Amino acid sequence: MKLYDENDPAPNPRRVRIFLKEKGVEIPLVHTSLGKLKHKAPEFLEKNPLGQLPVLELDDGTCISESVSICRYLESLYPEPPLFGSDAKESALIDMWIRRAEFRLMQPIGQIWVNTHPFTAQVVAARGGRQYTEYGESNRAVLASGCKLLDRELASRDYIAGDHYTMADIVAQASLDFGRLIGAGIPEQCANLNAWYARVRARPSATEDLSRSLLKPKEAKAIS
Amino acid sequence: MKLYDENDPAPNPRRVRIFLKEKGVEIPLVHTSLGKLKHKAPEFLEKNPLGQLPVLELDDGTCISESVSICRYLESLYPEPPLFGSDAKESALIDMWIRRAEFRLMQPIGQIWVNTHPFTAQVVAARGGRQYTEYGESNRAVLASGCKLLDRELASRDYIAGDHYTMADIVAQASLDFGRLIGAGIPEQCANLNAWYARVRARPSATEDLSRSLLKPKEAKAIS
Repeated sequence: MKLYDENDPAPNPRRVRIFLKEKGVEIPLVHTSLGKLKHKAPEFLEKNPLGQLPVLELDDGTCISESVSICRYLESLYPEPPLFGSDAKESALIDMWIRRAEFRLMQPIGQIWVNTHPFTAQVVAARGGRQYTEYGESNRAVLASGCKLLDRELASRDYIAGDHYTMADIVAQASLDFGRLIGAGIPEQCANLNAWYARVRARPSATEDLSRSLLKPKEAKAIS
Repeated sequence: MKLYDENDPAPNPRRVRIFLKEKGVEIPLVHTSLGKLKHKAPEFLEKNPLGQLPVLELDDGTCISESVSICRYLESLYPEPPLFGSDAKESALIDMWIRRAEFRLMQPIGQIWVNTHPFTAQVVAARGGRQYTEYGESNRAVLASGCKLLDRELASRDYIAGDHYTMADIVAQASLDFGRLIGAGIPEQCANLNAWYARVRARPSATEDLSRSLLKPKEAKAIS
């Protein structure tokens, strides 16, 4: 089993790295340079036709893409500590909050990144496309609304899906980390969410330095 | 246990209805009229703060939202036939294809609906917002690209995630059904995907008449 990844601030690969650190597990890494467009090379596209990191390749050659699906598989191999829940009800609620974090945080942050950020402007133009700037900017309100949803929930519990840290926290944290890097942060008035964010950022799994590559347009080009 | 739902073409509630029919299971239904905005009433918002259908309420009062999370829970109660996979590898691949169907089909269809459709124009305006028409239209190419991805995969297998019908087929089917209703269909040249679509639409679980409510602006208002 090996993981195709790059130590990069892109939020999806980062979810898997946080997950592995929380599990205390190391998996052989195949460094896949985004800057050198290795994730768009024909041999990589056979592993993931979408040309995206991360990919987990099993010993039988099966390739699993999608950060959450990779972690779900790894949970079956390394069940402790459980990050997808310990029974059906808990698992369903964690799954619900994973989806809400995807749709209410990561999606608007992604739209702000793709449609408003100067780093992505050149990528879109190189593909013959354009940024939809006003649409991108409108996603700041969508993100604020998602943050408020979580803020209300975190008034009565410590973590996104309950009293324990789970995959829902990882998805939300990696999304908000990336948002912060691109100027789409948590509204100040969301005190509960900001307190949660400080808690999860203090965990040993969250110590990566994310500030580097957003200074390099070539890497920004590759992430988008 | 009861399901808050309405017999409506909105794609998310429909996924759960198809899933239940595939399982041969009936659950007490609480009819929640979108037309009467019952899903925005305070007592409903306590069940789902996002004000969306469907919601599965358990006997202990726990409320699970998000179509896929509801189905994942129901799979634990009614394991046969398995629609989320029979082992960890299969489950991960099904989960991967569920996510790809969400992000590559449902997301662009949702953007076309929200940002270009005449029925949603009034809703957005009533909220003081606007449609981002050019952005919405640009999602037709995103949808076509998602359809081509599936079309290539379906050259070598009968169903989205493998040789069996799974939750990934349900997510893709309900998304594409809704796309078809709003004029965002499968490209004609995607022969494998169109053949798959004919196969899944012929299943007894897919016999609902979806043509009704898109003729009624009030219901269209509620879905969006």
